[in-house]
Amino acid sequence: MDQLHIQNLEIFAHHGLFPPEKELGQKFIISLDLTYDMTRAATEIDLEASIHYGVLCQQLTDWCQEESEDLIETVAYKLIERIFSHYPIVSETTLTLKKPWAPVHLPLETCSITLHRKRRKAFIGLGSNLGNKVKNLQTAIQKLQESGLTVMKQSSVLATEPWGGVEQDSFANQVIEVETWWTADKLLDTLLTIENRMGRVREIHWGPRIIDLDLLF
Amino acid sequence: MDQLHIQNLEIFAHHGLFPPEKELGQKFIISLDLTYDMTRAATEIDLEASIHYGVLCQQLTDWCQEESEDLIETVAYKLIERIFSHYPIVSETTLTLKKPWAPVHLPLETCSITLHRKRRKAFIGLGSNLGNKVKNLQTAIQKLQESGLTVMKQSSVLATEPWGGVEQDSFANQVIEVETWWTADKLLDTLLTIENRMGRVREIHWGPRIIDLDLLF
Amino acid sequence: MDQLHIQNLEIFAHHGLFPPEKELGQKFIISLDLTYDMTRAATEIDLEASIHYGVLCQQLTDWCQEESEDLIETVAYKLIERIFSHYPIVSETTLTLKKPWAPVHLPLETCSITLHRKRRKAFIGLGSNLGNKVKNLQTAIQKLQESGLTVMKQSSVLATEPWGGVEQDSFANQVIEVETWWTADKLLDTLLTIENRMGRVREIHWGPRIIDLDLLF
Amino acid sequence: MDQLHIQNLEIFAHHGLFPPEKELGQKFIISLDLTYDMTRAATEIDLEASIHYGVLCQQLTDWCQEESEDLIETVAYKLIERIFSHYPIVSETTLTLKKPWAPVHLPLETCSITLHRKRRKAFIGLGSNLGNKVKNLQTAIQKLQESGLTVMKQSSVLATEPWGGVEQDSFANQVIEVETWWTADKLLDTLLTIENRMGRVREIHWGPRIIDLDLLF
Amino acid sequence: MDQLHIQNLEIFAHHGLFPPEKELGQKFIISLDLTYDMTRAATEIDLEASIHYGVLCQQLTDWCQEESEDLIETVAYKLIERIFSHYPIVSETTLTLKKPWAPVHLPLETCSITLHRKRRKAFIGLGSNLGNKVKNLQTAIQKLQESGLTVMKQSSVLATEPWGGVEQDSFANQVIEVETWWTADKLLDTLLTIENRMGRVREIHWGPRIIDLDLLF
Amino acid sequence: MDQLHIQNLEIFAHHGLFPPEKELGQKFIISLDLTYDMTRAATEIDLEASIHYGVLCQQLTDWCQEESEDLIETVAYKLIERIFSHYPIVSETTLTLKKPWAPVHLPLETCSITLHRKRRKAFIGLGSNLGNKVKNLQTAIQKLQESGLTVMKQSSVLATEPWGGVEQDSFANQVIEVETWWTADKLLDTLLTIENRMGRVREIHWGPRIIDLDLLF
Amino acid sequence: MDQLHIQNLEIFAHHGLFPPEKELGQKFIISLDLTYDMTRAATEIDLEASIHYGVLCQQLTDWCQEESEDLIETVAYKLIERIFSHYPIVSETTLTLKKPWAPVHLPLETCSITLHRKRRKAFIGLGSNLGNKVKNLQTAIQKLQESGLTVMKQSSVLATEPWGGVEQDSFANQVIEVETWWTADKLLDTLLTIENRMGRVREIHWGPRIIDLDLLF
Amino acid sequence: MDQLHIQNLEIFAHHGLFPPEKELGQKFIISLDLTYDMTRAATEIDLEASIHYGVLCQQLTDWCQEESEDLIETVAYKLIERIFSHYPIVSETTLTLKKPWAPVHLPLETCSITLHRKRRKAFIGLGSNLGNKVKNLQTAIQKLQESGLTVMKQSSVLATEPWGGVEQDSFANQVIEVETWWTADKLLDTLLTIENRMGRVREIHWGPRIIDLDLLF
Repeated sequence: MDQLHIQNLEIFAHHGLFPPEKELGQKFIISLDLTYDMTRAATEIDLEASIHYGVLCQQLTDWCQEESEDLIETVAYKLIERIFSHYPIVSETTLTLKKPWAPVHLPLETCSITLHRKRRKAFIGLGSNLGNKVKNLQTAIQKLQESGLTVMKQSSVLATEPWGGVEQDSFANQVIEVETWWTADKLLDTLLTIENRMGRVREIHWGPRIIDLDLLF
Repeated sequence: MDQLHIQNLEIFAHHGLFPPEKELGQKFIISLDLTYDMTRAATEIDLEASIHYGVLCQQLTDWCQEESEDLIETVAYKLIERIFSHYPIVSETTLTLKKPWAPVHLPLETCSITLHRKRRKAFIGLGSNLGNKVKNLQTAIQKLQESGLTVMKQSSVLATEPWGGVEQDSFANQVIEVETWWTADKLLDTLLTIENRMGRVREIHWGPRIIDLDLLF
Repeated sequence: MDQLHIQNLEIFAHHGLFPPEKELGQKFIISLDLTYDMTRAATEIDLEASIHYGVLCQQLTDWCQEESEDLIETVAYKLIERIFSHYPIVSETTLTLKKPWAPVHLPLETCSITLHRKRRKAFIGLGSNLGNKVKNLQTAIQKLQESGLTVMKQSSVLATEPWGGVEQDSFANQVIEVETWWTADKLLDTLLTIENRMGRVREIHWGPRIIDLDLLF
Repeated sequence: MDQLHIQNLEIFAHHGLFPPEKELGQKFIISLDLTYDMTRAATEIDLEASIHYGVLCQQLTDWCQEESEDLIETVAYKLIERIFSHYPIVSETTLTLKKPWAPVHLPLETCSITLHRKRRKAFIGLGSNLGNKVKNLQTAIQKLQESGLTVMKQSSVLATEPWGGVEQDSFANQVIEVETWWTADKLLDTLLTIENRMGRVREIHWGPRIIDLDLLF
Repeated sequence: MDQLHIQNLEIFAHHGLFPPEKELGQKFIISLDLTYDMTRAATEIDLEASIHYGVLCQQLTDWCQEESEDLIETVAYKLIERIFSHYPIVSETTLTLKKPWAPVHLPLETCSITLHRKRRKAFIGLGSNLGNKVKNLQTAIQKLQESGLTVMKQSSVLATEPWGGVEQDSFANQVIEVETWWTADKLLDTLLTIENRMGRVREIHWGPRIIDLDLLF
Repeated sequence: MDQLHIQNLEIFAHHGLFPPEKELGQKFIISLDLTYDMTRAATEIDLEASIHYGVLCQQLTDWCQEESEDLIETVAYKLIERIFSHYPIVSETTLTLKKPWAPVHLPLETCSITLHRKRRKAFIGLGSNLGNKVKNLQTAIQKLQESGLTVMKQSSVLATEPWGGVEQDSFANQVIEVETWWTADKLLDTLLTIENRMGRVREIHWGPRIIDLDLLF
Repeated sequence: MDQLHIQNLEIFAHHGLFPPEKELGQKFIISLDLTYDMTRAATEIDLEASIHYGVLCQQLTDWCQEESEDLIETVAYKLIERIFSHYPIVSETTLTLKKPWAPVHLPLETCSITLHRKRRKAFIGLGSNLGNKVKNLQTAIQKLQESGLTVMKQSSVLATEPWGGVEQDSFANQVIEVETWWTADKLLDTLLTIENRMGRVREIHWGPRIIDLDLLF
Repeated sequence: MDQLHIQNLEIFAHHGLFPPEKELGQKFIISLDLTYDMTRAATEIDLEASIHYGVLCQQLTDWCQEESEDLIETVAYKLIERIFSHYPIVSETTLTLKKPWAPVHLPLETCSITLHRKRRKAFIGLGSNLGNKVKNLQTAIQKLQESGLTVMKQSSVLATEPWGGVEQDSFANQVIEVETWWTADKLLDTLLTIENRMGRVREIHWGPRIIDLDLLF
């Protein structure tokens, strides 16, 4: 697939664990590969289907200078977050961040981290059989959106009979399609956190619950 | 597989969005990887099965200077188009284009785009049950060729009964094998455009139509 | 996935086949890519989920200088062994080792080796039908641990009837899950070595044995 | 897997299409990656399981200077041939060859070719139902070996009844396992050539033949 | 003597002969060596006797972007003018200016100019024997200062008899010491220009004149 | 003084001792420093007082490709000759010429020659006391010009008495000022050659001669 | 003359004006040229007439890390002081010091200072005609030594008559030869400082004084 | 003047103080500038007036590998000796020698020495007034030649009266012109050594002596 490359953009910023690092500031170097289909830009001279690298470099610089982070992992992660948010046509991002003045007192060339994230679809199954079930489903979807997921489509709510031998109320079920660049682990953690915040206690196996969130595939 | 590499060929040309860019011209830098099997060239000293890199570099230079494009995406895309057209033995092309004098007012090393395209076979199913059905199939095949696809083989025309419960005339069906380096999206767009130009209205599901083009696999 | 890169760390050490090489010492250059998920480090500023590259570079230097090996293959291999042992979050390691002063009397740029190892799960089936069968299984598991494998889980011991038409005692069987970065060949060699050390003679096909170790998948 | 890298070995040799190139000679530059398992070399200090890069560089230089080829494709191909022949532990070879003084009268950095070949197992089915059938099979196997394939194992000869409705003698069949680094196309060409040289005429479908060679998988 | 070096400072500016160059702008690269005695800065930690390179780089950037010149010779010359004016401790300046995007359509690495100027003392003899002679001397000194020369010392005015056989009034003579970094040719041109502007006509050899300016040594 | 620098201009040309070198051609690389005063160009935007480096690079390329020399010393020397001839404002030239593809079969980076020549004034004394003395002087001056020297000024012809005790006719003497970039040795050789061609026999010390040419200082 | 070169020695140290710079530390890079005659080392294998660069690099590192200076001018100056003191055979020193992580927020390559000092002989004339004149001379010589000058030879003390018309006591005069690498300005300052400290008041021209120190040539 | 440059010629040799260095060998890198007038080579295609750099590089390699020295100073010095001896047209030599694998355990780029020597004329005055005076002069001249000096011209022997008030025999005096690239110190040492070997005792000032050698200018 097609890619746009930014190589070794130098940015002076104030990230670092120690107060003197935050006070003095230092140089950071960013390299970036963005994957997206350039066919339309190329064949229809469609500026909307293209990314202007001058503007992008300025954005990276601004975003990197806006805040002062402790870890370069956080700096890199937040930049990826912003790129996916500003550029919906981008399907994949690889970002390398160097901190060339990091005081490693040894003779080495460079030290750097690379983060790679890919935008993809995921399907989440929601279920509830306690309290206002439909309301619970709506609340969960809203919380998923607040956590940063983009909900693309949502099925209608279906009522299903309980399963697994425990006597309980029927379930309200729904499936939603989300688009995300998170890792699977991060996505699962988020589902679990929302379940917990909404009051689910995983006591009885197959038992009644306020909300049940599953990553389908 | 075997590859021929051209690294950093400098070409002075007049591409750019702004009139002063078209007037002054600037430097562009091309790197290229062409994939093709070199066994025959190597073992039978078969010059026809080889690509002469001196000639290729001159062609890239000429092609790049012939026209004046607004976007580097277009420059790169057209070069790939020409390579696949001139060199049938090439199965895969990766082209990187740098515009080193692009006025990004920030300290970075380079900015570039990479396009990667692979030649492959595709099978297209054609169907018609309105008007002169066989003529319609021929027209569609001709339009596919005019759009840039190479038709390698074509099946004989088969008559099939309508399907799906709508009362209508029998279908004339045909399958053709094409060779192309387009993305799947570009190929689908092309099929749709030809259907539209030939007057198909997708009103009734499974209903009668002048032409029906499907990407089989 | 995310990666930490160390590029060209120079270390003066005393490895080499010939006595003068061990006596004089020379320069070695290490490049390293470590793969692990940085999401937690990035989003929760979790220093435990991060690797401090300054500390890591110092460790590589110390480890490389502690001993004096004959082959650079051994130096590289032992460094990978230590990295996986010290950093449980690392899932993959690629290490390149150059010996820039190696006396190849020819004009070349560099000569180097790269070792790549990936941590993964493996399942080992154990069986015994001679002597104190349960004791044999325990002994084998202990020997597997001593050889460097990390046993993650172990099933209960099951008794199974002999199979294959040879009259013999019933088998005690067990399955364990291990985590390792060894190649499949190295793992198989280890199983065979333990079988041999524990006295198994592979004389009768399907016949009785003190211990039987199989790599399941 | 593990790799040995040789980067930019310079060799003065006399390859080229034109007589003055053969007369004057010029510089060629070779980079090479050899893949093989270094575990044994590393853990048992087994020099036999290691490749000495000094010796290898000298061999590349000698091999490259021994003959005078017209095409660099041939130079590269013959080097790969020699490497696989001399180093049975090598499972994969990637060789890049540059001809830096090639007179491309354009401003570019380098022009080069890369050949990549992988050693793998292949199974060939042999069949004959004309003349001395067993002798024919032996002849074919001998010709396969002479063409450069290494025969690892060979099955016993089986007699099978003809198939496909043509009345003819029964077949003598055999399967052999070969090890090769050739591309599939090259392997198929070789089988066809041997069939032709042994006098097979592909006239009757499923009919009698002196020798029949099939690439099984 | 001691020197401060600035190497390859990149500045985006709008110099060039052609209107599109002034409109688009391009990159310029400056290297600079300033000579001055660092003994006092070093031994007495005297910040006044030192030049802060951060401030200097910012000044070079600002000065280079303030105006839009036709020739890079003019850009370089004006920068030297400003440096000598702002930094009285500087005794010598070497400035190299590159215009890396200059459209020379040939394969070369860089094209640049270097200007070297040295601050030194010069002595100018003034004479007048027409009109208000003392006033003329004062006017000339004022004009010398306005042209950019720094007058360090000035002698008292002496009256001398005319010389050379032409009958005329006595002369008022004065000697001044100036400090300048101009070339000798530029200094002589300036003296001549002032003489002309003050109305001297060089008609009679050794004859009467409003003002006479000589570069003594 | 001010300088214009051209760094590493690549030119494909056909110089070399051996016929295959002349036939195939190879790459040559030129670096050039031209010294001249840029004050006027800088302060009066005087394009005549400036050298356009684009034009200069094209001239170097053309001059280098026009002929086919045996030695790179000759190539470099002729380029300097042309530069001084075309650019009267140039006072000093340093030219480095590399022949990067020269077949030195040893591992070295580059091999090159540097020629440095400076334009200066020289004074030549001419004398004759045989035949048509004034005519002889004119002939000699003409021959000096034909040999490449630029005659700037010439004195009137003076008659002087013979000197040194040999009885002979009186001398016609003249002094001319020439401008040249030749070495002193080359200049002396030229004077001697002209004397010889004009028939002088250096038999009698201080004796009569057709022409006498002396380098004064 | 012969030279020893150290190129780009990296040293981590704690110099800088601001407290965070002193706290964090940063990288400094030193290049050094030492001039001394290597004939004896070369022809007599005289290790005493040679400088061991390994030892020298270690000394530079230690000296640079011992203290924490405000200005890099001071760091460089003190290193030169130590070099001349430890290595009497060195006649000339050129030291370049870079502070690559200095926070100049502009795109430039490097910023550095170079100090050049040359060891030479100087002659100092001493005079006194007040108090204990011989004692005064001895005191002055001692103070010159304490200030860092090496006294090589000293003349005997001569009595001379006062000069210049002021009635006063006779003078005790002496000449000493010192060896120093200081600049002339620094030497003159030192003489003046000692005169002042010893109580000389420069009131009467040619008048009586406790001590009079003159730099002879 | 004109120069031939050899840049970074790599030679594997066995120089070093320690036995393992002599045993293993290591890489040395030579850069060389030779100064000589190329006018004749350039204008008369005179191969004798040119130096073939291919031959020269081979000579440097051979000379450097012939012996095994303790110090790189000796290696460099002997190479210069050979260059002046083999190439009489060379007037000046600058040779830089790097020992890139020297075990300095600190992060620096390179360590090297540069020797610069210039061929020049020197005049030596010889005198003798003891024994067979003319024979003594001849012996001294022979010894000067054996020590490495090239005697270009020698005056006739003159008899001069003793001088300085000591009663003694008359002197036989002679002046010779030598050509040498030695430093003045080395030349003086050589004269002194020959005087001593020939038995001169410098007891009486201006007194009688076997041989007296003075460096005139």
